[in-house]
Amino acid sequence: MVRNKLAKGGEQVSELTASRLSVYLRCLNTLDAAGVKTVSSRTLAEQFHLNAAQIRKDLAYFGEFGVRGVGYYVRELKRHLRVILGLDRTVRVAVVGAGNLGLALADYPGFRQEGFEIVAMFDADRAKVGRKSRTGVRIIDMAEFRKIVKRENINIVVLAVPALAAQDVANVAVASGIRALLNFSPGTLKVPPGVKLKNVDLTVSLESLSFFLARGESDEEEE
Amino acid sequence: MVRNKLAKGGEQVSELTASRLSVYLRCLNTLDAAGVKTVSSRTLAEQFHLNAAQIRKDLAYFGEFGVRGVGYYVRELKRHLRVILGLDRTVRVAVVGAGNLGLALADYPGFRQEGFEIVAMFDADRAKVGRKSRTGVRIIDMAEFRKIVKRENINIVVLAVPALAAQDVANVAVASGIRALLNFSPGTLKVPPGVKLKNVDLTVSLESLSFFLARGESDEEEE
Repeated sequence: MVRNKLAKGGEQVSELTASRLSVYLRCLNTLDAAGVKTVSSRTLAEQFHLNAAQIRKDLAYFGEFGVRGVGYYVRELKRHLRVILGLDRTVRVAVVGAGNLGLALADYPGFRQEGFEIVAMFDADRAKVGRKSRTGVRIIDMAEFRKIVKRENINIVVLAVPALAAQDVANVAVASGIRALLNFSPGTLKVPPGVKLKNVDLTVSLESLSFFLARGESDEEEE
Repeated sequence: MVRNKLAKGGEQVSELTASRLSVYLRCLNTLDAAGVKTVSSRTLAEQFHLNAAQIRKDLAYFGEFGVRGVGYYVRELKRHLRVILGLDRTVRVAVVGAGNLGLALADYPGFRQEGFEIVAMFDADRAKVGRKSRTGVRIIDMAEFRKIVKRENINIVVLAVPALAAQDVANVAVASGIRALLNFSPGTLKVPPGVKLKNVDLTVSLESLSFFLARGESDEEEE
């Protein structure tokens, strides 16, 4: 039902909205774990440093989830958000690149909750093939990528490979039918229309902080 | 000189611009390593899947770096970008949380290039204190955080702690004089004005891909 509304609605739901829904879900999980049954947008906002009006607006887009005088039923809203985010079924993920970062991502607890399953890791280095991450994700030869992606119904591929290999791996993933890529390799990748690429460039994140500090410090020098 | 221009200019340079400058620097490093001396915005754009007009606009804001008929001198532009991004001196970084992710971040090659130095890791778990990451970053007792931050002139703190601990650690960092935080913990943190917080929520990134796949698939069902 919720998904139908999404499909029929002509409006574009921005990636920012999706990110916020994801944050709301995380907050509701915390409340649910603490035994909280209902919550108002105001309380939710106060407790998690969010914006109450934004919460109401974001949720209203997908349906009428709030009840006057009560707020939101925590578990019900959780269930709705999981459907909206496509987490009502298991999303199957493969990590390419079994270096430090790839191994940390394969074992990252935040990826294992919420319906994601890290099915396999891939690496071109024969010395790594056959080993496992700490939580038991097996490292498979990159030569088997296409076969395994089909057989294991992989939905999302996480790229944690060196920058120079990233475009090649992205091409292989797209040719294997993957439509969603989460890229941790520095630099920019090209994917065809219909494929969603999300970049997490850790160095860029750190450099934007450095940029901020450099600006702040020179402001002080000037004044 | 460039920094003065930044300090005097009243305009806000967006975080997006900073991120793009960081990407340009990465591309120029690749070209420099390949022995390329000069590059036009068009070639730069074509080679790295960027936007030539955007490159020219972003760079023009900071000065006149291009030479007609030549383009940009790779090394010179690199040097300018490093100054703009505050990378002309060593930026000293500490990672809090010595779990899988914290250890991967401490050893991440992208953090070690470009003038960043990972000076120390911190953890509250006594069993981890005294150990080292693979590349030799020492894990120090969180109780020593404030002292070490002062002594080692730490500029940026990376948070890789469980969600429930993140706000406390952020508060300790701010109280210790830290003005830039890179947070990998899920959930939202509050920091006072004048402190820059950058969030990298890996689960949110994955969920926005799941959201895209859920929408895409239901579109197909409908048509």
